Amino acid sequence: MASEFDLIARYFDRPAAHAVLGVGDDAALIRPGPGLDLAVSADMLVAGRHFFPDADPAQLGHKALAVNLSDLAAMAATPRWALLSVALPEADEAWLAGFARGFFGLAERYGVDLVGGDTTRGPLNLSVTILGEVPAGQALRRDGARVGDDLWVSGELGGAALGLRHLQGQLRLAEAEAAACLERLHAPEPRVALGRALAGLANSAIDVSDGLLGDLGHILERSRLGAEIELAALPVPAVLAARLPAPLALACLLAGGDDYELCFSAPPGRRAAVQAAAHSVGVAVSRIGHIGAEPGLRVRRPDGGLLDMEVTGFDHFA
Amino acid sequence: MASEFDLIARYFDRPAAHAVLGVGDDAALIRPGPGLDLAVSADMLVAGRHFFPDADPAQLGHKALAVNLSDLAAMAATPRWALLSVALPEADEAWLAGFARGFFGLAERYGVDLVGGDTTRGPLNLSVTILGEVPAGQALRRDGARVGDDLWVSGELGGAALGLRHLQGQLRLAEAEAAACLERLHAPEPRVALGRALAGLANSAIDVSDGLLGDLGHILERSRLGAEIELAALPVPAVLAARLPAPLALACLLAGGDDYELCFSAPPGRRAAVQAAAHSVGVAVSRIGHIGAEPGLRVRRPDGGLLDMEVTGFDHFA
Repeated sequence: MASEFDLIARYFDRPAAHAVLGVGDDAALIRPGPGLDLAVSADMLVAGRHFFPDADPAQLGHKALAVNLSDLAAMAATPRWALLSVALPEADEAWLAGFARGFFGLAERYGVDLVGGDTTRGPLNLSVTILGEVPAGQALRRDGARVGDDLWVSGELGGAALGLRHLQGQLRLAEAEAAACLERLHAPEPRVALGRALAGLANSAIDVSDGLLGDLGHILERSRLGAEIELAALPVPAVLAARLPAPLALACLLAGGDDYELCFSAPPGRRAAVQAAAHSVGVAVSRIGHIGAEPGLRVRRPDGGLLDMEVTGFDHFA
Repeated sequence: MASEFDLIARYFDRPAAHAVLGVGDDAALIRPGPGLDLAVSADMLVAGRHFFPDADPAQLGHKALAVNLSDLAAMAATPRWALLSVALPEADEAWLAGFARGFFGLAERYGVDLVGGDTTRGPLNLSVTILGEVPAGQALRRDGARVGDDLWVSGELGGAALGLRHLQGQLRLAEAEAAACLERLHAPEPRVALGRALAGLANSAIDVSDGLLGDLGHILERSRLGAEIELAALPVPAVLAARLPAPLALACLLAGGDDYELCFSAPPGRRAAVQAAAHSVGVAVSRIGHIGAEPGLRVRRPDGGLLDMEVTGFDHFA
C-alpha cells in the first residue's frame, strides 16, 4: 500500500496559484496582505471502524467542497484556499482518484487552491476547511436582517430532498425527474457569484443546507426578528409543484436540505438592484416574504391562512 | 438529545478576541491586515459506525489542538485561530464538556480563538484547522536546510513512544516512570515559543510527530540533502537511557512518534544564538548532528560505527 505521503503527493499536491507555500510542509503559507503571511494547517484524529459507503467518489469530492463554497457564498466571500482532511478505511487509489477529480474539478472552476490537510486511516470521513477573501465590512451575516426587509431565495428549493426521498424509496420519480433531482442532491452548484454580487445589497444571508425553515430560522434568531413567507412564492421545480400540497412534498420544500441555494434579506428599495445583480450572474431569485418585528416564522398558504406549523410538524424546524 | 446547534453554542461558542466574527455564522471573519477580511469555515462529512474509545476527553481536547499548534511552532508562526470539526457517535455531553475543557485550556494559554467548525454524528473523529501569523518570509520551512547546518532537537525524544509501549504491554514501567511517559504521550506541550524564537536563526524545521528519522527525512527530502546524527547526542529521558541500546528503546528513540519536539537546522555560526534563543523561552535544545551533501540519513553509534539501518529495520523510516 502507498504511504500517506505518497497519496498526498499523488492526488493532492497541486501547484498553489495564490499561496506562498502549498501542500508538503507543516503548514501552508498564505499572504493575504503585504508584509504578513498566514500559516494554515489542518490535522485529523480518527478513532473508528471500517466502513465504506458506495457513493460515487467524484460526486463526493465535488460535494465536500461545494458545501464549503456555499458557506462562503453566503458570506459574499471569494473562496481562495481549502484544506482537506480525509479518513479512509483503506488506501483505495481508485476511490481517491475519483474523489480528487470531483474535488479539483470544482476547485479549479472557482480558483481555489488546496493548501493543506491530512489523510489518515479510519471510517470514511471528509473534513474540508475553506478560506476566502471579502472586503472589510462587506460580508453578509446572519445577524444583519432589518424589519421590513424582503426575503429572497435563489434558484429552486426541494429538488435535492425529493431526490433523497426517491433514493430512500419514499416516492417514485420518473427517470428524467429522478436524474434532475439527484443532480441537485449529489452535485450542488454553490452560489458564489451571487453571494459576491449581493455584497452591499443584502442585509443578511444564509445558505439553505438544512432546509428553508431551519436555515431562515438562524437568520431570525441571530437578528432577533421574525418573518412571514408565502408558500405560493417559493420557487419549486415542476416535479415538486405537481406533488404539492402533499405532506411529503411540503416537507421537501420547507424542510428539505441539500439545496445550497442562498436565502437572504434586502430592503424593498433595492428590489431592482437585487434582480439586476442576480441577472448579472445568471441566477434566478424569488421574493418569498418579508422580515417583521414579531418573533417567529409564519408560512402563509395560497388560501390566505397560515400553515399550522404544529400540525404539520414544522415548528421544530423554524 | 440536544441539537447540534445547542451543543455548539454550549461548548464551542466563546467570545473571539482576535476575530471580527466567530462561531455562529456560515463562516468566521478574520482580519489579518487592514482593509481585508478572511472568511474561514470548516465542514465535515462522515460515514461511519458507532465507536467510542475510552481516552480521557480532556486529554484528547488538549492533544487535538496541541498537534496543530506544534505544526505552527515548526513554521515559527504564532497561532491565532482554530477550527474544530467533531464527529461523535452520540451527543455525550460529559464527553464534550471534558473535551472542551482540554481544548480551551490549551487554546487560552496560547491566545487561540476557536472561530468555526462543525459537529456531526459518526465514528469519533476530530479535525482541527489552525491559522497563525508569521512575518512575511520568516517562516521556517522544510526545504531550507543547507550543507554544513547543525542539526538540533528540542526537549527529549522517545518518552511518548515508551509510554505507548507501556500501554500496549510491550514493556513494564515503574509507576512514576509510566506517569511521566504518559504525560508526554497524552499532553504534549507544543514548542510555539521556541519556534518563534528560531525565526531568523534556523534554516529549516519540522516537528517530531512521526519519529525523528521519518520527520528529519522530510527535511532531507525537501532540501535534497543528507544528514548524519550521533546516537549519543540524542536527548533522552533517564527511563529510556537506562534501556538503550535494546531494540525496543532504540525504536522509541529513533522512530517513536508523539513527542512534538522541534527538529531544526541552523548554521554553525549561530550556535550561541540558538542556545540563547532556546534559553530565553526555557526549552533545552541539543545539537545532534549535521546536514551534508551526501543523500541519506546516517546514525553514528557511540563506538564510532554506523547503525545498520537495514538490520535494525529503520531504513524505511528515513
